[in-house]
Amino acid sequence: MADLAWITEKDEIRDVVRRAQRAGKRVGLVPTMGNLHEGHASLFRQAADELDFVIATIFVNPIQFGPGEDFAAYPRTPDDDRRICQEAGVDVVFSPSVETMYPKGACTRVQVVETEKPLCGMNRPGHFVGVATVVTKLFHIIPADVAYFGSKDYQQCKVIVQMVRDLDFPIEIRICPIVRESDGLAMSSRNRYLSHDERKQAAILKKSLDLATELLQSGERSAKRIRQRMRELISTEPLANIDYIEIVDSESLGPIDVIDHPALAALAVRFGRARLIDNTVLVP
Amino acid sequence: MADLAWITEKDEIRDVVRRAQRAGKRVGLVPTMGNLHEGHASLFRQAADELDFVIATIFVNPIQFGPGEDFAAYPRTPDDDRRICQEAGVDVVFSPSVETMYPKGACTRVQVVETEKPLCGMNRPGHFVGVATVVTKLFHIIPADVAYFGSKDYQQCKVIVQMVRDLDFPIEIRICPIVRESDGLAMSSRNRYLSHDERKQAAILKKSLDLATELLQSGERSAKRIRQRMRELISTEPLANIDYIEIVDSESLGPIDVIDHPALAALAVRFGRARLIDNTVLVP
Repeated sequence: MADLAWITEKDEIRDVVRRAQRAGKRVGLVPTMGNLHEGHASLFRQAADELDFVIATIFVNPIQFGPGEDFAAYPRTPDDDRRICQEAGVDVVFSPSVETMYPKGACTRVQVVETEKPLCGMNRPGHFVGVATVVTKLFHIIPADVAYFGSKDYQQCKVIVQMVRDLDFPIEIRICPIVRESDGLAMSSRNRYLSHDERKQAAILKKSLDLATELLQSGERSAKRIRQRMRELISTEPLANIDYIEIVDSESLGPIDVIDHPALAALAVRFGRARLIDNTVLVP
Repeated sequence: MADLAWITEKDEIRDVVRRAQRAGKRVGLVPTMGNLHEGHASLFRQAADELDFVIATIFVNPIQFGPGEDFAAYPRTPDDDRRICQEAGVDVVFSPSVETMYPKGACTRVQVVETEKPLCGMNRPGHFVGVATVVTKLFHIIPADVAYFGSKDYQQCKVIVQMVRDLDFPIEIRICPIVRESDGLAMSSRNRYLSHDERKQAAILKKSLDLATELLQSGERSAKRIRQRMRELISTEPLANIDYIEIVDSESLGPIDVIDHPALAALAVRFGRARLIDNTVLVP
């Protein structure tokens, strides 16, 4: 296992990518905010399986956090991250400073106007503009052939796919499955914020998605009634504070009443200071 | 002189660029809306002088026109354009359809939030979002080494330079001088809209910019007084309707009172249905 290169400058990482590509290598990019877990590692491994050269980025992107959100508190664990990258087949980490990414006077924003509106867009105004902007920058700094994203952030994936299509980015996007803990909780850096009791109760989120799948399989087609049953189940856990539970068109993310084609069940629920999201696609 | 290639599909032009670059050629891009004139030709010639392979794009971009503006009326002259491209050393024209550039459902926009605010941004809301979005797309479809823009559209140049810096586009931007008619009128496709009388009177715009330069050279440093003198001069032409006359910081485009470092004198004036813009940099 070669030593992992850790690069902080834009010109340097761009040169690395171009050299790899000139040598005939196909390059994969996995953008992350660090505090890596098995979910990220699964993306790294898939990229390393499919391509010749894998770059992980580690950057806690300030402009995707709203006022009062957890930018300052967001866990930063570079030593663990380095080990996880190395073990999962990453060749190079790009981890720039905030000043490198957003020098004084920077004022350009990328907005995926329709896709960003529903779901988390309602609770986190500006969040997806921050995501689309930093991903645009990373795609320019690291002109990879393929980029990998995890489907826990389903709406983020849709925002990026739409942006790549609309702006003609010359990159392929791969969306990879959610990785879960043994009790079903979706892996997330924000799980760290959970107390012992919150952590136990947070397993209800996956159970509510499983309930939605079961209800659909037993013939229920009403989005409203399934949402109601999910809400009732989650509300049995006293520490759960629901931001939203939605069932929407899995492609457009638009509202639906009757599940007669693939739908997305998506939720955001707070336990203490952790705002957790999860989702599943319901296929009738 | 080889036959000029005329390409309408995104994949095809991208392949052309990549093949040229793999053959060691440096590629130049000159985005235009067609109805080419000597101003465009000067950009083509500069690109052909400096680089190995020159691509002109011809696309009347609907999203940079506001409601009531001249998108439908904008002159389209493909036969003349082809000849001008060929004579000025263009290798390939990319001229996509509106449907190719904006397929149904496209909803992503690029905004250079600060730079777009003053000057034309006040009179043409959404214009520079349309410009930044289409230029982003063209930079992705045609991954050129250098792109050329004319400084008649000074604020547009600033928007693009700021966007390239903020979003880390791997492209170099060259800003080229204004090309003028013999009486000083800046070349523009919109000069076609002018009647005989309007065309004669429009020469006052360059005269007002020359007046600003003379006043500065004679010791005047007040932006307000110079603007006032420009306004008085332009108002001697009865067909002139002033949108704005501004003197701003030539870098930030922010307001200034005293011209103690390089300033931009910029104006937009309507003659009949032609809205003409022009500018000059005032260096004290």
